[in-house]
Amino acid sequence: MPRPFVFEKPAGMRDKLPLFFQASEQIKQQLLKKINEWGYQMVQTPTLEYFDTVGEASAISDQQLFKLLDMEGSTLVLRPDMTAPIARVVSSSMKQVAYPLRLSYSAPVFRAQQREGGRPAEFEQVGVELIGDGTMSAEAEVLALMNDVLRETGIRTFTITIGHIGFVQELFIEILGNEERAEELRRFLFEKNYVGYANFVKNLPLSSIDSARLLKLLECRGGDRALDMAMDLAGTEKGKKAVQDLKELKEILSTYGAAEAINFDFTLLSHMSYYTGIVFEGYAAGIGSPIAGGGRYDDLLSRFDRSAPAIGFAVRLDYVMEAIGQHEGVTNRTCILYSGERRKEALLAAAEKRSKGIPAVAQDVAGVEDIDAFTKRFTDVVYLIGKTQGEETT
Amino acid sequence: MPRPFVFEKPAGMRDKLPLFFQASEQIKQQLLKKINEWGYQMVQTPTLEYFDTVGEASAISDQQLFKLLDMEGSTLVLRPDMTAPIARVVSSSMKQVAYPLRLSYSAPVFRAQQREGGRPAEFEQVGVELIGDGTMSAEAEVLALMNDVLRETGIRTFTITIGHIGFVQELFIEILGNEERAEELRRFLFEKNYVGYANFVKNLPLSSIDSARLLKLLECRGGDRALDMAMDLAGTEKGKKAVQDLKELKEILSTYGAAEAINFDFTLLSHMSYYTGIVFEGYAAGIGSPIAGGGRYDDLLSRFDRSAPAIGFAVRLDYVMEAIGQHEGVTNRTCILYSGERRKEALLAAAEKRSKGIPAVAQDVAGVEDIDAFTKRFTDVVYLIGKTQGEETT
Repeated sequence: MPRPFVFEKPAGMRDKLPLFFQASEQIKQQLLKKINEWGYQMVQTPTLEYFDTVGEASAISDQQLFKLLDMEGSTLVLRPDMTAPIARVVSSSMKQVAYPLRLSYSAPVFRAQQREGGRPAEFEQVGVELIGDGTMSAEAEVLALMNDVLRETGIRTFTITIGHIGFVQELFIEILGNEERAEELRRFLFEKNYVGYANFVKNLPLSSIDSARLLKLLECRGGDRALDMAMDLAGTEKGKKAVQDLKELKEILSTYGAAEAINFDFTLLSHMSYYTGIVFEGYAAGIGSPIAGGGRYDDLLSRFDRSAPAIGFAVRLDYVMEAIGQHEGVTNRTCILYSGERRKEALLAAAEKRSKGIPAVAQDVAGVEDIDAFTKRFTDVVYLIGKTQGEETT
Repeated sequence: MPRPFVFEKPAGMRDKLPLFFQASEQIKQQLLKKINEWGYQMVQTPTLEYFDTVGEASAISDQQLFKLLDMEGSTLVLRPDMTAPIARVVSSSMKQVAYPLRLSYSAPVFRAQQREGGRPAEFEQVGVELIGDGTMSAEAEVLALMNDVLRETGIRTFTITIGHIGFVQELFIEILGNEERAEELRRFLFEKNYVGYANFVKNLPLSSIDSARLLKLLECRGGDRALDMAMDLAGTEKGKKAVQDLKELKEILSTYGAAEAINFDFTLLSHMSYYTGIVFEGYAAGIGSPIAGGGRYDDLLSRFDRSAPAIGFAVRLDYVMEAIGQHEGVTNRTCILYSGERRKEALLAAAEKRSKGIPAVAQDVAGVEDIDAFTKRFTDVVYLIGKTQGEETT
C-alpha cells in the first residue's frame, strides 16, 4: 500500500468529527421537523442511479458526474441531485399516488471537483419537491417554506433572490430570434460576467432599441422596482405574464409573512438546465455561494412519463453551518472510571446516568494508557477504583 | 434515452417510500439515542475513499467493491464498511485524541451484488467502534451495548452468537502446521459447509486424534458446554486463554444483565478478514442473515500507524426493519383545501396546526386535479372554499 495515501481522502471529500457532526445533525433535524410540519413526507433514494435515468435528466455537467460501470456494463452515477431521482420515484413506485405530491429528503449528493478548487464533492442537501401543482400558490408555498427553514437555522441575515428563466428566455428569443445566441447570453449571465454580456450585446447586429433592451435587463435587480422595469422590458404576452406572476407571488408571500427577505434579479439563472419558470437562491452574509436554491421545473416529469408541473428547493447544509459559524459545542458526558473489583458498582452508576439521558461512559481503568489525557474529554469523572467503597469526583 | 431504463434502479438499489422511511428513521433514531447514552460520539466519513486507503483495508472481496477513477486517475471505492474509514479518521484528524475512543456512526455502505441474487447493494449500518482498549471489559461493553440496541428495536426474540477467530486459527495452525490448509478449512466454515469440512478433514494426512479434534470443533456450539468442549480441544496456552477469556466475558455480561441472549459457536467466522479475536453475530427469528455483527480487530489500526486494539459492531437497519415487520404506520396529517379568496384564513389555520406539531398541508384547490384522490391521503380535511365563512370538516 503506498504509504502517502493512507491518511488521505479523495478530492473534495470531508470527515465530520464528533462536535461538528453533532451541531450539524441538530440543525438538520430542526429543518426536517419544520419541513415535516408543512406536510412534506420524506423519501430516500439510492446513492447510485443509472446514468440513462437520472444522470442525463439531472443536467449537471458531464465532467462533474461520478461515473462507474456495474457488473452488466451499464453506466451508473452517484446522484448529483435529488430532483431527478424523486421524479423517477414519483413516476414508478408512487405512480398511483395522486398529485399534488409533497415530498422531502435529506441526502448527500455528489459532484466531482478539481482538487485545487477546494470545493466539496459530496455535500448534504435538505430539500422539498412539490409536484403536480402549477399554481402561484405552489410557488409561494415553497418559497415561504424555504424562508421558514432558513429562519429556523438561526442565520441572522439572509436574502432570497428570485429570477424567472421563462422571462429571460422569452426576451432573448424575441430579440435574437434563435436559441444559439440566447444560449451564449445565458452563459454570460450564469457566469455573472456582466461586462462580457454587455460587450457581446453591443456587437450583435441589433436595432439600438433591442440592444438597449438587452442591456436594460442587467438593471432589473432589487425590490419591486425591478418588477416594474421588467414589465417595461417585456415585449410579449408571455413575458408580461411572467412579471405579473411574480407580483402576485410577492403578494402571497406577504400573506405568509415571508416577503421581508425577498428581492428580484432577472439576471439570475441556474446551472440546473431543467428549470422552466421562477428560479431562486438564498444567500447569507459572508458566504460566497448560495446556501439554498430552487425553482420551477415543469418539463422534467414528462421525461418520466408522468407529466406534471413541479417546484422545489434544496438547502446546502454545509454552507448553512458555515453561515452559523461557531459550532464547537460542549457535550455533557460523564466518565465512570473503575477497576475490576468495582465493576458492578460502576455499571449501575452508568446505567443510572443513562436512564436520566446523560451520556455516560463506564471505562475499565486497565484499558486506559494515559488517564489524564483520556479523562479531560469528559465534563464529569467519577473514580471507582480499588477495594474501598469511597467515591471521589473531580 | 433508452426508455426501458427510465424507471429502473441499478441492481440491489432500493427506494424508501414515505411510510417505510418514517418507520425506519424512527427506529434508527432510537438506536442512535441508546448508543449516545453509552457515551459514543458520532462521526461521518465520505462515501468515497481511496482504494489504497480503505478499500484494501476493509477486506471486502474485490468483486464486491464499487470502484471508479477520480480526475487524477486514482481508484476510488464506495465505502464497503465503516470500520476502515473510522480507523483512517482516528489515525489522522483525531490523532491527538487519547485512547480509548468511543465512536459511532449511521451510514450507508456499498457492496456490489449480482442482479439475480436480489440482495441489497447499498444498506444502512448503525454501529460503534471502541478503539484503544484491549481488556475483556471492552468486549463486554460492546456486546452489552449491542444487546441493548437490539432490545431497543423491539424485536422480541434475538440471539447473539459468539465465536473466536483467534481460537480457531490457533487450533488449525497447531494441527495443520501451515496457513494454506488453515485457509481452506476456514473457507468451509465461513460457507457453513460442514459436510465439506468433515470430508476435507477426513482426507488430510493426520493422526486419528488430530482428525477427531478438527471434527470435534463442529460440535463446539451452544451454551456454556460449548466453552467446556472448546477448552478440552485447545492444545496451546493461547487457545486455552481464548476460551478462558470467553468465560470471563460471559460473567461480565451477566453483571450487565445482558447474558440471556448469548450463546457460543466456535465455527463462527466472519467475511471481514481483519478480525483477530472474538467475533459475534446477532440473529432474529425468521431473518436468514445476521441482523448485527462485529468483533475484535487488533491489527487494523497498525495499518494506519496508530496501532491499537479495537472492537466494534454494526447493526443492519434493513434486516432489523424486516425482523420488526408491519411498519406501514399511519401519519396524522391535516389538509386545508382552500380557494384563492380564503387563502389568508387557510394559511393561518395551517400555521396553527403546525405550531401544535401537527403536519398540515395548505393546498390551493386550483392546483388539484382529482380532489377525492388527493384528499384521501389525509387523516383530516378542512375545506375553505368560496366566499362564505362556513367551514366543513370530513
